[in-house]
Amino acid sequence: MTIDIKNTAPPFLKTLEEFRQLVDSADTFLFDCDGVLFLGTQLTENAKVLLDMLRSSGKKVIFVTNNSTKSRRQLKAHFDSLGLDASLEECFGSAYASAVYLSEVLKFPKDKKVYVFGHEGIEEELDEVGIAHIGGSDPEDREFTPPIDYSQYSPDPSVGAVLCGADNWINWKKITKAVIYLHNPECRLVLTNPDATFPIGGSLFPAAGSMSAPIVYAAKQTPIIIGKPSKTMMDAVIAHHHINPARTIMIGDNLHTDIEFGINSGIRTLLVMGGVTKYEHIYGENPSPVVPTYVINRAGDLAALAKQ
Amino acid sequence: MTIDIKNTAPPFLKTLEEFRQLVDSADTFLFDCDGVLFLGTQLTENAKVLLDMLRSSGKKVIFVTNNSTKSRRQLKAHFDSLGLDASLEECFGSAYASAVYLSEVLKFPKDKKVYVFGHEGIEEELDEVGIAHIGGSDPEDREFTPPIDYSQYSPDPSVGAVLCGADNWINWKKITKAVIYLHNPECRLVLTNPDATFPIGGSLFPAAGSMSAPIVYAAKQTPIIIGKPSKTMMDAVIAHHHINPARTIMIGDNLHTDIEFGINSGIRTLLVMGGVTKYEHIYGENPSPVVPTYVINRAGDLAALAKQ
Repeated sequence: MTIDIKNTAPPFLKTLEEFRQLVDSADTFLFDCDGVLFLGTQLTENAKVLLDMLRSSGKKVIFVTNNSTKSRRQLKAHFDSLGLDASLEECFGSAYASAVYLSEVLKFPKDKKVYVFGHEGIEEELDEVGIAHIGGSDPEDREFTPPIDYSQYSPDPSVGAVLCGADNWINWKKITKAVIYLHNPECRLVLTNPDATFPIGGSLFPAAGSMSAPIVYAAKQTPIIIGKPSKTMMDAVIAHHHINPARTIMIGDNLHTDIEFGINSGIRTLLVMGGVTKYEHIYGENPSPVVPTYVINRAGDLAALAKQ
Repeated sequence: MTIDIKNTAPPFLKTLEEFRQLVDSADTFLFDCDGVLFLGTQLTENAKVLLDMLRSSGKKVIFVTNNSTKSRRQLKAHFDSLGLDASLEECFGSAYASAVYLSEVLKFPKDKKVYVFGHEGIEEELDEVGIAHIGGSDPEDREFTPPIDYSQYSPDPSVGAVLCGADNWINWKKITKAVIYLHNPECRLVLTNPDATFPIGGSLFPAAGSMSAPIVYAAKQTPIIIGKPSKTMMDAVIAHHHINPARTIMIGDNLHTDIEFGINSGIRTLLVMGGVTKYEHIYGENPSPVVPTYVINRAGDLAALAKQ
């Protein structure tokens, strides 16, 4: 099959000269992780060489992930276990982005609390920015057994926001508490990320967006969504890292999270093949309306510059 | 305040003559229950007199409820405990409607099973129509404790539909199993009803629509919705009761479930005040676009005919 590359199709970077122009044009490289730097528990080819090359050239590298269960500290430990030698500053997950958003953008009052629907990573990041919280890993909220005594739900009047991420301990009590807090129209609903599913071993499992769906559906309040593809995630990155969007590139394998994220945030994007996107989605007869700035076969291809 | 009744506003029935014309014009009276015949655990005034009058005049009375946790047998027991003297045939809940829909409309194959996300009432009604099922009240699926062993989810290849109702035992395992079944595009997703919340003691709690939301969000499959306001519920009523829609009236207090249900089903509707709808919603300056055929103060007002 001959691929007919239309005029509107993005350039597919193949030569050393194209790689060099790209790298020279940016100071900050935002990386999606799974599908780009690793596939499951395996690093992709030359991923480590590429990161070391960028770091040693004075470029800033940031791992931007929608994973909502892990704090930056936990993400660093995870990335390190895969061999990425991440610094804490390089790790930027949706749990931390949510804490930064609440603290910096919403100016969350110091006398208010957040009700957490999610894991310890969210609690750790709220602690980090000095926001009080209840729910989360509280054993009382990880207690599942019905029947349910409706009278026990007397809301804490100091709760000013409900923050929802992926929660493998999802249960009726947690959902109900969150919905009761959201009866107060001044209580904000914040979602770490909108992902419907995540892939494990060829199957798809429910992710944070699905876990939060009962609360969104019952509360009938438009949520503030933090993670990719929302520009809110970029606002949090910029608030923390003070990067220049004009000299920043988002590198990812997913059109509807990574590339849309870059487009929504007004920065250039580099789509990596070999993850969830196929050539036909970009260069086929009916290409996706989501168009990256550039395309490359593998992120590690850029590491060829290190050998010059 | 003088209420300005616009030309398009529905007639507000107040006189014995209007009551008589209404009752004479119908053979079947579909009743919403909570807010119409009872409020919580209290029968509304003259509700029992009205039902007895209709029954003794040879009218058919059917209780059409979105409650998905109870079988008709359980609904009858519940209605009887409130003093309504219901017959089994008069009870029509969304669990039974879903079983009838699967059996009669979808012609669900006898060698296939339904994965149930819901309570025993759904299982009882599936048994009633001879459809095999797994999940539901299975203790294995009411086992909550993470961590989760992903490898344990090997789907049963005979599952041909996922049926979701309210499930107070909602947990990650159930959601995940449902989503894995729905990876098969031939597996249908059926929701007993779309209700977001239900009221208890002045507070709102998550209902079936909210409980099902993670599965709908993760599966990305358009669900078949059975309960009010979906016409599907009426198709099931007609399939079972062989009523004449032209001589049927839906009586309810909720514009967005009961009255929309009547409109979607092409039957007349009688809106009852005193429940969730206020006068302003019908006769105010910005009335609801959902317009009932008639309005009455209380359902029990019609019982005045019994004293003639």
